[in-house]
Amino acid sequence: MKDEIDINGLFLGPKSENGDFFKKLIMDAINEHLFWRKDFHPEDDPIVSLYEKDQKNFILTEEKITQVIEKICAKLKETSMPWHSPRYLGHMNSDILMPAMIGYIAAMLYNPNNVAFEASTATSPMELEVGKDFAALMGYDVDKAWGHICTDGSVANLEGIWYARNLTSIPFAVAELRPDLLKGKSHWQLANMTVDEILDLSAKVKDIWNEVRDRSIRGTGVVQNQLGKWIVPQTKHYSWVKAGEIIGLGLNNVISIQVDNNYRMDIDLLEKTIKELADSKTPILGVVAVLGTTEEGAVDHIDRIVALRKEMETQGVSFYLHIDAAYGGYARSIFLDENGSFIPFDKLTDRLHEDGVINQDIIQWPSEEVYEAFRAISESDSVTIDPHKMGYVPYAAGGIAIRDRRMVDAISFFAAYVFEKGTQSPSLLGSYILEGSKAGATAASVWAAHQVLPLNITGYGRLIGASIEGAQKFYDHIQKNSILDVNGTKVRLEALTKPDFNMVDFAFNVEGNKDLEKMNQLNLDLYNLSSYVSGPVFKNDFITSHTEFTSDDYGDAPKDMVERLGIDSAEWDRVHSFRLMRACVLTPYFMNYKSTKHYWETYLESMKRKLEQII
Amino acid sequence: MKDEIDINGLFLGPKSENGDFFKKLIMDAINEHLFWRKDFHPEDDPIVSLYEKDQKNFILTEEKITQVIEKICAKLKETSMPWHSPRYLGHMNSDILMPAMIGYIAAMLYNPNNVAFEASTATSPMELEVGKDFAALMGYDVDKAWGHICTDGSVANLEGIWYARNLTSIPFAVAELRPDLLKGKSHWQLANMTVDEILDLSAKVKDIWNEVRDRSIRGTGVVQNQLGKWIVPQTKHYSWVKAGEIIGLGLNNVISIQVDNNYRMDIDLLEKTIKELADSKTPILGVVAVLGTTEEGAVDHIDRIVALRKEMETQGVSFYLHIDAAYGGYARSIFLDENGSFIPFDKLTDRLHEDGVINQDIIQWPSEEVYEAFRAISESDSVTIDPHKMGYVPYAAGGIAIRDRRMVDAISFFAAYVFEKGTQSPSLLGSYILEGSKAGATAASVWAAHQVLPLNITGYGRLIGASIEGAQKFYDHIQKNSILDVNGTKVRLEALTKPDFNMVDFAFNVEGNKDLEKMNQLNLDLYNLSSYVSGPVFKNDFITSHTEFTSDDYGDAPKDMVERLGIDSAEWDRVHSFRLMRACVLTPYFMNYKSTKHYWETYLESMKRKLEQII
Repeated sequence: MKDEIDINGLFLGPKSENGDFFKKLIMDAINEHLFWRKDFHPEDDPIVSLYEKDQKNFILTEEKITQVIEKICAKLKETSMPWHSPRYLGHMNSDILMPAMIGYIAAMLYNPNNVAFEASTATSPMELEVGKDFAALMGYDVDKAWGHICTDGSVANLEGIWYARNLTSIPFAVAELRPDLLKGKSHWQLANMTVDEILDLSAKVKDIWNEVRDRSIRGTGVVQNQLGKWIVPQTKHYSWVKAGEIIGLGLNNVISIQVDNNYRMDIDLLEKTIKELADSKTPILGVVAVLGTTEEGAVDHIDRIVALRKEMETQGVSFYLHIDAAYGGYARSIFLDENGSFIPFDKLTDRLHEDGVINQDIIQWPSEEVYEAFRAISESDSVTIDPHKMGYVPYAAGGIAIRDRRMVDAISFFAAYVFEKGTQSPSLLGSYILEGSKAGATAASVWAAHQVLPLNITGYGRLIGASIEGAQKFYDHIQKNSILDVNGTKVRLEALTKPDFNMVDFAFNVEGNKDLEKMNQLNLDLYNLSSYVSGPVFKNDFITSHTEFTSDDYGDAPKDMVERLGIDSAEWDRVHSFRLMRACVLTPYFMNYKSTKHYWETYLESMKRKLEQII
Repeated sequence: MKDEIDINGLFLGPKSENGDFFKKLIMDAINEHLFWRKDFHPEDDPIVSLYEKDQKNFILTEEKITQVIEKICAKLKETSMPWHSPRYLGHMNSDILMPAMIGYIAAMLYNPNNVAFEASTATSPMELEVGKDFAALMGYDVDKAWGHICTDGSVANLEGIWYARNLTSIPFAVAELRPDLLKGKSHWQLANMTVDEILDLSAKVKDIWNEVRDRSIRGTGVVQNQLGKWIVPQTKHYSWVKAGEIIGLGLNNVISIQVDNNYRMDIDLLEKTIKELADSKTPILGVVAVLGTTEEGAVDHIDRIVALRKEMETQGVSFYLHIDAAYGGYARSIFLDENGSFIPFDKLTDRLHEDGVINQDIIQWPSEEVYEAFRAISESDSVTIDPHKMGYVPYAAGGIAIRDRRMVDAISFFAAYVFEKGTQSPSLLGSYILEGSKAGATAASVWAAHQVLPLNITGYGRLIGASIEGAQKFYDHIQKNSILDVNGTKVRLEALTKPDFNMVDFAFNVEGNKDLEKMNQLNLDLYNLSSYVSGPVFKNDFITSHTEFTSDDYGDAPKDMVERLGIDSAEWDRVHSFRLMRACVLTPYFMNYKSTKHYWETYLESMKRKLEQII
């Protein structure tokens, strides 16, 4: 077997197996820092003397600090979620990478602020590298693209729509100032220029860039008839509603597209909507495709959206395309070889198997649909990607990448050309992004993770492969255990869909029960027994999360699963709401047959016991 | 002497004096966490075996992690700024509080996410407490107010303008839906309702709140003629331009008010502007007053702005008032006694002296103007306050407080009444603020700092008092050393103003030089020798930051100082630009006569040596 990363060496471990190693590296980093302080001008005397340290107020101060830290530790231990344990299969949380934690701590001692290079000479270059990693991961041309860390995906999404909004308004400003450049273009044509056309146009007016800015939405404020509609899948994360509201577009201009039975944006409906808008000469500001929906882990048909955009562009209709890959983005590593090339579909299965990423003897993943969706991200304009989700790094670390770094001029506070002056590290990052002050420690944390685990099949691919394999095994176990015997009562267990990614949604119903409300109550009760609601989590056998699908958000998509659970579709039409368990399988510890078996049996026993309590 | 905090026990110390204590608490916190992991279901076997840990790939994985962490430590040591040392007097950085760092690390091990209570059962309540601390610090009624942590001040400022924008549009929506409630109100009157009136009106339409939302700016997108102008001081932080742009108001609708000779917003000019806007029936969306400008630490006349608003309200003109106290906010602690009452001005001097906060024998601070400005914050609508500035906690930790928590309904994604259901801890914080996922560790960090140092005169007051005393002493030293002898050449040293707070701006000129550009070059050269630009900071004797005042941003305010440095005012009219050093004195180590003397002499010698190199 060739040299490779052992995933079991990356985390503290469910039983703190790697605790000594972790403590050693942290102590080393702290000691390095302590001596660095002392080594800065050795001729300066210490300020705190041994004598002072022996005085009452000094000791009381130490006592106070100790008490407060002990209180924090106690509070954390009392109620925290045991994300490190394979017994936790709920939200997008699991153990996090040791190098990311230690990198964070090491850098925090120096407390750099990546808002400005001057305040983060060590960690600003790391953020720049991480941004390039994002761009390469997404298949963008790294020589043209750009990326940076955001505090979270909501802020990255807001930045994405900010780009789209500002870019869209540039042609209108240029049409006023330099009509010669856009001779004969109608309002409709101005509203439908492609991103590349807008950037090329912008390049021609850099000499009057401040005037362009002042005549565009940036100067005038939002002008509604320029923007049109922003299209998102109905399963949208609420951050998209928030972003559309904040940016001044308005909720009424955010259009939701129904999902299909696989919980992906319905492409036929999307096409129909876009064509109707085009027919009524309503501009389309942009479309968001989601790579890993929050509730189902569903992967939208990005390839088909890209194709649709190409087709519409032949008809003079264009729109911005943002991918919300906050959740699924890192999984694109699985498809990249060591050179960053997207592995052909007919070679992928073999590589996944041979490299021990996913055992193809038992798990068939990905489907060609999912594969094509991941591939097509490279043709989007920007993408949200959260290291603190599938990057396994501590909060708070979101991120964004843009396909063409010239886009930055559309939002940056300072003069144009920042990236054209030969510098790739802006001296004041805060003036080219939404945020201002930001922890350099986050950059060190993500950088450390990327250094240990490259963003390709042998790095993050292996880790995320373990997570996907675990999820698919969990799904298979559900499929094989569709009827549970709970003290003589038969209870049906059904999974929502074969997961596109690593999230498994499932629900229970007592055989013979035909009442949807009763079934919903059963699943809510079960959730309450499988979450923090039931008291100190510490004693719980199995912890998961839950979700609720209503017809407002999901149309009739849940009907199929409701019926599989033995409920008439008429009940769905009456109740219009369906509750499920939701297990995001991030734990990397299901590659091993023995531990997978142990934990699955544990869950099953735990769920049976909980069902006994309820029924 | 009564029991009190010894500031020297709060920090690691310039020479790592408290390193052993620091390491012990971190190790304790880590050990607590490691055993907590093991104690969760002791019946689960470890996943990582001793045998596996002895295998090649496992050891290679550990080696890889070790190498990456060592590389990070090396990079940090090579280029980081020595913020721990009193030799650093530049940006808003210094040593940071040990309890805040340890609190961060302790919580990061559990990696809570404060976006949702379910994901942060320990740290969400801490954020709620911190939010209350912010509100109490600002003099808001804590039973009515609300606050939370933001990633930084730029995001808090954006959230402030978001509140203002959405509130302003509510009356227009209600006028359409329930005209009876606003009978006889003109467009102008609707645009000039006070925040309280809007909130009272909102309370009457909660039954149709979704309709109100959809008819307001939230639904329709920005409608320009409702919003009017957003007024900021000319010395504004660029985050205000960014916020006004993002929110859809437009840069052209952000009005800057010139500063006076003390670098505070010119109140007469503000009054004139507001009255002119009122005369032309242009609505005023809001006014921002700054408590501690980024470049000068100047404190705007908040009391006079509050008085002006009251006066204008008698004439039917109202506006939102946001205080940007990102920098100066924590200093309000100095004015609060142990019961949270604002200490009367005639008692303050004695208390500051007796409690050892500021030695009034040598330093007279605050002026009555500054005192009144701090007092009047309680009458604002919202305020930005950054723990990672004067709160001495690690990045990234900003914050916002709002006077009336009913305001949240104007921006929250979910239905109204969140705070009326008896819960003070929203189950999904992310739907009531701009951000989504956020590190619970930040809440633990700020909470730890507030527990050790209460936000009053005996807590943070003492720490920030030390900083202010240090700054004022630094200013006094400059005053007493106005002519330096540099190898026979006389060089004049002047400070910009007597600081309102803890920032000292200063500049040098060779006696006899009448050329402003030459003087600017001298100060730029000096800065280059006193910053990271000069190479590894590690060898530098004295490190500071710098700034440039142009007439675009500062009008003729700098003229006075230029003249004091021996340059004709005609030069200012020609060059319109002036460069200065900028020293934010955050270090708490200037209370002691001996160390102050040592460091001042060090600076002076260092500056003389650097001047020798340049002249």
